[in-house]
Amino acid sequence: MRLFRFGAVGQEKPGALDRSGRMRDMSLLIPDWTPEWMAPERLKALQAIDLDKLPLVAEGTRIGAPLAGIRQFVAIGLNYRQHAMEAGMEIPREPVVFNKAITCIAGPNDTVELPPDSVEGDWEVELGIIIGSKAQKVGEAEALSHVAGYVLANDVSEREWQAKRNGQWGKGKSFDGFGPIGPWLVTTDELADPQNVPLTLTVNGQVRQKSNTSDMIFPVAYIVSYLSRFMTLLPGDLVITGTPQGVGLGMKPPVFLRRGDVMTLDGGVLGTQRQQVV
Amino acid sequence: MRLFRFGAVGQEKPGALDRSGRMRDMSLLIPDWTPEWMAPERLKALQAIDLDKLPLVAEGTRIGAPLAGIRQFVAIGLNYRQHAMEAGMEIPREPVVFNKAITCIAGPNDTVELPPDSVEGDWEVELGIIIGSKAQKVGEAEALSHVAGYVLANDVSEREWQAKRNGQWGKGKSFDGFGPIGPWLVTTDELADPQNVPLTLTVNGQVRQKSNTSDMIFPVAYIVSYLSRFMTLLPGDLVITGTPQGVGLGMKPPVFLRRGDVMTLDGGVLGTQRQQVV
Repeated sequence: MRLFRFGAVGQEKPGALDRSGRMRDMSLLIPDWTPEWMAPERLKALQAIDLDKLPLVAEGTRIGAPLAGIRQFVAIGLNYRQHAMEAGMEIPREPVVFNKAITCIAGPNDTVELPPDSVEGDWEVELGIIIGSKAQKVGEAEALSHVAGYVLANDVSEREWQAKRNGQWGKGKSFDGFGPIGPWLVTTDELADPQNVPLTLTVNGQVRQKSNTSDMIFPVAYIVSYLSRFMTLLPGDLVITGTPQGVGLGMKPPVFLRRGDVMTLDGGVLGTQRQQVV
Repeated sequence: MRLFRFGAVGQEKPGALDRSGRMRDMSLLIPDWTPEWMAPERLKALQAIDLDKLPLVAEGTRIGAPLAGIRQFVAIGLNYRQHAMEAGMEIPREPVVFNKAITCIAGPNDTVELPPDSVEGDWEVELGIIIGSKAQKVGEAEALSHVAGYVLANDVSEREWQAKRNGQWGKGKSFDGFGPIGPWLVTTDELADPQNVPLTLTVNGQVRQKSNTSDMIFPVAYIVSYLSRFMTLLPGDLVITGTPQGVGLGMKPPVFLRRGDVMTLDGGVLGTQRQQVV
């Protein structure tokens, strides 16, 4: 299924795309998409619902993040070879892991507000994993069975805060609005192979990133297994998996976001995002 | 007030210490200590309850983490001058910020399980801040008004995972059980000055850390204000504020935790902890 949430910020309702790709309102049946809905048996039960019998959501309605109540927002760094090179970093031998504040999560088309003193705002198109069931010390072979689905994500970053304000990347990654996800949460029955998702990002219409998750150094199954070795992953947790080459920091000379810029992201079946920088 | 939670893991009930320091069961009045109870007006309303009229909690009952539903677990690194020096790190010009997984939170006396391949387990006694009301871009002068109270914390760390597994400290800080907090959540009416809390930690009876929060480089008000510049702090969020000198990594030669070791922590009014390493 392709799940989404729609409505004003903080008042989103749940929906799903029908077979024709039209947005259906599920709020008369389901209170909201929350972590407990990510359990495999509950996602499967949703298929009993005939979406064609539910009301359409009006075109132009705001789309929110497709899941409420996300408890942990983990990010993988430097997971594409050429991105590690453009960032001037070593190719990692193990996944680089950091956190984004859960409060930075936003809808796919919400404006991105740079902090007042921002000088190095940057973009990062990524595949995001939504965890379906608790994962503790799981092997790579069983890791994908703990995944509920996938989302498109923009790991918006402020490079000065990330790298020049005394270590640890989370600082430059956690501003409100720096975590647009969605529009769709595509469950694994509709996206069985997470290693073949096209990822494109443009700024003001110019293609800056164009890659495919097939280029990842550490694939999704490895990441879930690796994280589960040192922390417990909970249903609804969001793990974004690193960005390919083409970020502003990697350009010569570097190019950073300015107010008024428009980012668009395309993740194939995961849908598209559009964010204006303010 | 001094709030606590008691009972089996995952089934804790809320309690509070009465004027004589005896543990009273509040579960007939309050479902649990959750973030919304951290609001200043709700904490104040609790003072209307005559604790002497509530049942005593049996001595020897397990004590859990004093707050359920913590959404963000932020940690400050290198916030004591001599600890930065013993860790071989520069004195930071700005707070070093990292995250611990919320799933690592444990009761103050629960056993600490080292991962099977752990070679460098270490201890860090710290003052923890519990946020009371949403904080976004707050100044230092108003920062303490966003604090609900304080807890004693052990920022248990696995130095090999923290430092030698490809960057970003969270990896070595997030194992289940690596975040014992409590026993008491001491609200600000009983601990007005967070910069005068004694902190002591022993391993197998030997004092390893002995300091006071008066030695912090960045005090609590500064930390809350600083974090709120790049992320939104939510009610119930936990911020641990760095450890003083005396960690195992800083000893010459370094000494790390072994199975069977016992850590004890003392935070004055914040209470005491005792963890056996397994």
